Amino acid sequence: MSAVLETAVLWGVGVGPGDPELLTLKAARVLRESPVVAFFAKRGCVGNARTIADPHLHGDQEELRFDYPFTVEVPATDAGYRSEMSGFYDICAGRIAEHLVSGRSVAVLCEGDPFFYGSFMYLHDRLAGRFSTRAIAGITGMSGCWAAADLPMTHGDDILSVLPGTLEAAVLARKLAEADAAVIMKVGRNLPKIRRALDRVGLLDRSVYVERGTMAAERIEPLAARDPDKPAPYFSMVLVPGRRGAR
Amino acid sequence: MSAVLETAVLWGVGVGPGDPELLTLKAARVLRESPVVAFFAKRGCVGNARTIADPHLHGDQEELRFDYPFTVEVPATDAGYRSEMSGFYDICAGRIAEHLVSGRSVAVLCEGDPFFYGSFMYLHDRLAGRFSTRAIAGITGMSGCWAAADLPMTHGDDILSVLPGTLEAAVLARKLAEADAAVIMKVGRNLPKIRRALDRVGLLDRSVYVERGTMAAERIEPLAARDPDKPAPYFSMVLVPGRRGAR
Repeated sequence: MSAVLETAVLWGVGVGPGDPELLTLKAARVLRESPVVAFFAKRGCVGNARTIADPHLHGDQEELRFDYPFTVEVPATDAGYRSEMSGFYDICAGRIAEHLVSGRSVAVLCEGDPFFYGSFMYLHDRLAGRFSTRAIAGITGMSGCWAAADLPMTHGDDILSVLPGTLEAAVLARKLAEADAAVIMKVGRNLPKIRRALDRVGLLDRSVYVERGTMAAERIEPLAARDPDKPAPYFSMVLVPGRRGAR
Repeated sequence: MSAVLETAVLWGVGVGPGDPELLTLKAARVLRESPVVAFFAKRGCVGNARTIADPHLHGDQEELRFDYPFTVEVPATDAGYRSEMSGFYDICAGRIAEHLVSGRSVAVLCEGDPFFYGSFMYLHDRLAGRFSTRAIAGITGMSGCWAAADLPMTHGDDILSVLPGTLEAAVLARKLAEADAAVIMKVGRNLPKIRRALDRVGLLDRSVYVERGTMAAERIEPLAARDPDKPAPYFSMVLVPGRRGAR
């Protein structure tokens, strides 16, 4: 038995946007070496992060599955939602802490990048004060999507704004007008509003719609060409490339 | 000899922010398979992208080195600069095109991500109309930096703004006040101005300064703790984490 006690680490492992080949070499290595792997999923589903990471996991790891208490989007301002989600994250953090206290590192699978939206940060909030935490950067959904769309986004001194599709129409329009390049996330049922806002500020014609970027069901098309009445899945985004820099 | 003529591809390969382990599996594979590898560098230097990619290259590849005509920053609005850079990119694109026309794919090494700032896009602009182009997403400098800083950035409905440090002080302050989270790039000699703008809008205390993130000379510290008179290298940025989302 080793005389050196190694500190257990909570890893936030970015697994990228969907294509398993878009994990970093470092993420693949840490997953191989992790005794415990944790991930979030909706009840009854395998979970995106678990699906993406599957080729990188072997059968010897202990898996911790955290089932979200909600399966549909609830406004983040709903007090009951916030309270229940907070309790949920407390429980998840507690399950992870048991392993860390026993000296076993835990790797949490993070869709995209660990600190760019997503659920890992709520675990980090609760555990970083007591334990060693490390993040492995991941390919964000937006990078995966603009690469898949072969779409140059930001040149020179362009300003990029990342906007949630949940913003009010007037705010969305203003933010779009003020940025050089933009990414609109959480499109889903917000698409008609997003489309109108883009049209209002003259950006509809350069906007690109990407659905399930880098995955088998990927679909990419000019937003203006897309049937406005067709619903969009949650995992969709709109890319607005910036002005061209000096050539 | 194969009867199938494969189309040569211009690859924009994201090599990430500095740590060679932060290349994606896909980038590593494409680099191994590429007969020709191209990269930009300043005269007399190895070049960041070439340094990062070095462990992933073997001796059999033909290397195309593109030496920037300028070694210091010139304002992008300078007409002579724009004209000379444009001519430079024309020449680089021409050298790449010779290989593509002969059926040899070319992989261009892109620091960070190929479509998020950087020089590759000027080649893409010139060649995408005639040749097959593909981009491999890379870990952006900002993702590398916030992971290295163990710094959660965006929760829930946060808006993220990516701002060049070259913005006028008043514009910078306004953009910072309007965003939930921000990344300020191209810090370098702009740091005193950036620091004043952050202070003006009450964000100095949460700002984090990162220099050469993910590289051996990495330095991370609260911006407020840093000596305001100490110059900052070009490869530095300031991270302003967002408000906390629902917990």
